[in-house]
Amino acid sequence: MDTRRPTNPAAEEILGLYFPVLDHGFVALVDYMGSDEDVERAARVSYGYGTRRTSETRGLIRYLRRHRHTTPSEMVELKFHCCMPIFVARQWIRHRASSTNEYSGRYSLIPLVFYRPEAEHFQAQSATNRQGRSGEALTALHADAVERWERGRRVAGDQYEWLVAHDVARELARIDLPLSTYTQWYWKIDLHNLFHFLGVRADAHAQYEIRAYARVIAGMLKRVAPLSFEAWLDFEHGGTHLSRGELQALRRLVEVRGRDLEGRAGARLGVDELTQLGLSRREVDEFIAKLTAAPPDDDFELDPSTARPAEHFAREMEAAVPRVDRKT
Amino acid sequence: MDTRRPTNPAAEEILGLYFPVLDHGFVALVDYMGSDEDVERAARVSYGYGTRRTSETRGLIRYLRRHRHTTPSEMVELKFHCCMPIFVARQWIRHRASSTNEYSGRYSLIPLVFYRPEAEHFQAQSATNRQGRSGEALTALHADAVERWERGRRVAGDQYEWLVAHDVARELARIDLPLSTYTQWYWKIDLHNLFHFLGVRADAHAQYEIRAYARVIAGMLKRVAPLSFEAWLDFEHGGTHLSRGELQALRRLVEVRGRDLEGRAGARLGVDELTQLGLSRREVDEFIAKLTAAPPDDDFELDPSTARPAEHFAREMEAAVPRVDRKT
Amino acid sequence: MDTRRPTNPAAEEILGLYFPVLDHGFVALVDYMGSDEDVERAARVSYGYGTRRTSETRGLIRYLRRHRHTTPSEMVELKFHCCMPIFVARQWIRHRASSTNEYSGRYSLIPLVFYRPEAEHFQAQSATNRQGRSGEALTALHADAVERWERGRRVAGDQYEWLVAHDVARELARIDLPLSTYTQWYWKIDLHNLFHFLGVRADAHAQYEIRAYARVIAGMLKRVAPLSFEAWLDFEHGGTHLSRGELQALRRLVEVRGRDLEGRAGARLGVDELTQLGLSRREVDEFIAKLTAAPPDDDFELDPSTARPAEHFAREMEAAVPRVDRKT
Amino acid sequence: MDTRRPTNPAAEEILGLYFPVLDHGFVALVDYMGSDEDVERAARVSYGYGTRRTSETRGLIRYLRRHRHTTPSEMVELKFHCCMPIFVARQWIRHRASSTNEYSGRYSLIPLVFYRPEAEHFQAQSATNRQGRSGEALTALHADAVERWERGRRVAGDQYEWLVAHDVARELARIDLPLSTYTQWYWKIDLHNLFHFLGVRADAHAQYEIRAYARVIAGMLKRVAPLSFEAWLDFEHGGTHLSRGELQALRRLVEVRGRDLEGRAGARLGVDELTQLGLSRREVDEFIAKLTAAPPDDDFELDPSTARPAEHFAREMEAAVPRVDRKT
Repeated sequence: MDTRRPTNPAAEEILGLYFPVLDHGFVALVDYMGSDEDVERAARVSYGYGTRRTSETRGLIRYLRRHRHTTPSEMVELKFHCCMPIFVARQWIRHRASSTNEYSGRYSLIPLVFYRPEAEHFQAQSATNRQGRSGEALTALHADAVERWERGRRVAGDQYEWLVAHDVARELARIDLPLSTYTQWYWKIDLHNLFHFLGVRADAHAQYEIRAYARVIAGMLKRVAPLSFEAWLDFEHGGTHLSRGELQALRRLVEVRGRDLEGRAGARLGVDELTQLGLSRREVDEFIAKLTAAPPDDDFELDPSTARPAEHFAREMEAAVPRVDRKT
Repeated sequence: MDTRRPTNPAAEEILGLYFPVLDHGFVALVDYMGSDEDVERAARVSYGYGTRRTSETRGLIRYLRRHRHTTPSEMVELKFHCCMPIFVARQWIRHRASSTNEYSGRYSLIPLVFYRPEAEHFQAQSATNRQGRSGEALTALHADAVERWERGRRVAGDQYEWLVAHDVARELARIDLPLSTYTQWYWKIDLHNLFHFLGVRADAHAQYEIRAYARVIAGMLKRVAPLSFEAWLDFEHGGTHLSRGELQALRRLVEVRGRDLEGRAGARLGVDELTQLGLSRREVDEFIAKLTAAPPDDDFELDPSTARPAEHFAREMEAAVPRVDRKT
Repeated sequence: MDTRRPTNPAAEEILGLYFPVLDHGFVALVDYMGSDEDVERAARVSYGYGTRRTSETRGLIRYLRRHRHTTPSEMVELKFHCCMPIFVARQWIRHRASSTNEYSGRYSLIPLVFYRPEAEHFQAQSATNRQGRSGEALTALHADAVERWERGRRVAGDQYEWLVAHDVARELARIDLPLSTYTQWYWKIDLHNLFHFLGVRADAHAQYEIRAYARVIAGMLKRVAPLSFEAWLDFEHGGTHLSRGELQALRRLVEVRGRDLEGRAGARLGVDELTQLGLSRREVDEFIAKLTAAPPDDDFELDPSTARPAEHFAREMEAAVPRVDRKT
Repeated sequence: MDTRRPTNPAAEEILGLYFPVLDHGFVALVDYMGSDEDVERAARVSYGYGTRRTSETRGLIRYLRRHRHTTPSEMVELKFHCCMPIFVARQWIRHRASSTNEYSGRYSLIPLVFYRPEAEHFQAQSATNRQGRSGEALTALHADAVERWERGRRVAGDQYEWLVAHDVARELARIDLPLSTYTQWYWKIDLHNLFHFLGVRADAHAQYEIRAYARVIAGMLKRVAPLSFEAWLDFEHGGTHLSRGELQALRRLVEVRGRDLEGRAGARLGVDELTQLGLSRREVDEFIAKLTAAPPDDDFELDPSTARPAEHFAREMEAAVPRVDRKT
């Protein structure tokens, strides 16, 4: 169709394509409003009459992000159709500055489709961060776990079918479905809040399963607003935050001569000195990690050839809905 | 402790008391900020110098609510500790204008405590509203359902314990727990948004289980800000909304003489006339229901003697956590 | 340009047209995302598998609005470019669920363009509602007032030019500009929150000046999502709210026989009876007003021929910026 | 009064005290809900059963802030009564995640009290940041400016009095009052969003006048939640953000040996090398500024002896309201 609205060919290319995530989930970009130029236009309304307008789009967008002038990026909006396990949906929904319409288990029959972790992501509790995975797969255990999951899901699915077949209210029939059951929703969010979402959910500390969604969404965003995305990669995703004490430590280790930076020969800070600057033991470790960890090298590139038509998933879901002989 | 902050004896009386909801859940009022007088004070800052200040608190609060001047009621805040099945939590969390801290299944072991509907609430799918219950209990089926729930929960609980015992990451171990598993959170919300929550969740169309929570919360709110609550009962909970067409119909049926209202003798509107006023068949039925349904007679009174100490629930939950022999 | 996004010819027609408001202000629809069909699509994701999909778009949208299922209408987004006096902007900005980028008086020079009320809107303080206008123009006084406004604005404008010419920081130079000075912004909001905005600002109790903006915006919205708009007209704008007491009064005056409604002959309620039903004197008056006031008959139709190109306003504003000889 | 709610002696001490800001403004802490212990308690609900609870409040709060776990700090709420010039109010209101009740110029007569910048803050436009002040006072010009401000305000005040005396609607009478006119409001915000407010408004790039308010509010917050405040000082206010390129530069200049950090002797990065790491000229300057600027040394300590009773300001405002002989 023809429009006078701002459009973006790279985004148009993937519009309505369904990208698989995990074993049965997906994300599709359904609609978008605006692009980098609209962020610029919104910022320019601030820089009105009587100002020079020399900087170009990229420079302006990087300036805005660097200085946390985030309101112009609220002017771009993205809408997605997503399908994910309920335990992922529960983390996702915490991002309040967005709009959601979820599949209703009160109205509708729920497809009996469940998420099954693959062996490589089946890992032990991390001993260090206390909330995530260790990084090492529990390969030997996986086959057993799969068998147990399948048994449990058969029981839960049978229970759901039995209740629905006996006309029990759907809002009750569903209560023993597992958190691994897939649900789906429409989700709309602006660029500013989406960057915040990615900051939390594309991060290495996020649970692997929601990270898988965040990565695909990042690839879509990269097509909608590539300059804003690049700025986010450089200043947020690949950057870091320093405390007052860490900054003071660096000032002792690095010398500034005019516009040259030099390592200050002989300067040395051990745990004792860092502690005197106010860093706790744990903060010292975190500081060292910042200075040694390899920078993230994700490019979040999306391959349109991996996408499938909407019907593929619709058919799979519809086929998994309990067959009941109710006379409605 | 002593404070110069506004306090409210009726609210202080129940502060920290844990009121049971459903079979294992609870709601406790943990803290509150302000009362009716603070709504008034905030409104008065608008009615500043050069205005008469004759109306008293009750009149002002009723005026504000009637005319949807809702910002002053944002000045009162309530904080709750709540424990509810996950499927209830999923409806609850949709109220975005609030703050939540939920028990984390990534950090912590989840107590194996599940919600079991009682026979009287075990009902068929409603044929009319298509998303709720019929109102009639499926008594004959209940015992069977309970047995099946217990079997399924045993399977799910065993699976969780087995995975945790094998040191599988908690964020993965939990994924097959049923939606009936209890979770808990701290929840903070202001009076304005809490009234919106009650409007949706204390309503007859809400799922029974979340309504049970809304009713207890309403009872707490009644103690924190009794005049605001009374106004909500009169103007929202017990009131209704009329469309343009319904209002036109009433103007034909009711005559206004000065300040007297009279039934207009001989005035009669059937489906045809109502349809001509723009009402669909469904709207006609809804209009008639508004004029015939008995007004709600809940008083939302809370009986402090039904409350239990926090420790009661803490002990129950703690006892239901899987015993694992991990060396952490 | 070509797009696969949902478009809407009636909205495309006015995209980028600048509609004048007041003496120097404007509103332009800059972009939009979605239409009625997208509200429907979002709602349908709730009504998933195992439900009948018989109702068509209009019926569904009216059902959603009637029952306050507002989340699907969050899926439509509108973006405007607006120019209004600062005192209007101060009322407007109170609608927090939206995004704004305002012209910055810290960066930029402010055009010396001021709002001058016309004689017909120059009215006395209302004696009844205590915050608005009486409805009657103070014609005799207007010419005097205009002369005084012009003198005061000359003083304020001279002061601004003098400060700016002496290189005083712009953030300081502006502080004595009057509240009638025009400012401008980009404004983005979703359909649900825009209806709320219109409910408050297109209402007869709103200040005339912001109502003038609300009316133009309503006309734009009517083109973006006509079915949603029609439903809003019928259920919100032209409807009303009844309290518990008012509803009880109507039940005494109107008889329901099957699906027929009849005026109950001989039923009569005076102030005393209404007071017994809990209505205050003021509420009685408000109730009577609801039953007697003529329904609003605005159609909010927008005439594209009244619009002007963006350049028209840009030129006017640019020409009103102080000419300073600063060497920057 | 006696309460079972959590209280905080340092906060109680200043509750209801009015601290002067600028020449006629003020901020008073009116109420608060919770303190550091409540942040901890909210976080602990996440760290439930089966976790060790060894870390104490301070460590936990610093951990939360360092890792941007901000939801627990939403559990603390503060309420203020503030009086500020309208141009300050216009910046302030942009912080949407808060509640506001402002003095209404539609209902009430506006006190004719205006903000007059002192000589030391009367500065030229900054040549470098393009939106703020240069840092240097335009002392010679100040007396002239003051005289001009006074003349303009007399004109504006007379106009307001004349219009009000002729019974012109207050919503119209006010439109030529200058942006320097004082207004007032109640303002409620949670700790998380207040830290964001302070991050923007206590920053050196904020306009001096709003910064003056932010500093007093910071002093109040320090008394309500001292450990959270200390963490904010260390990690946010005194810290900084590094981009991917800046981080890479530091990795070349600093060597990590075990837990020791050393300046890397001979390492030297000039503009060319930094440009190769992706930094623009402007970013190079910003990077050097981060490594050379003295850390902020504000302690935001509040002196209760500078406060005045509420009546002091109420009297001043009331006295500045136009005396009109209307018979209402």
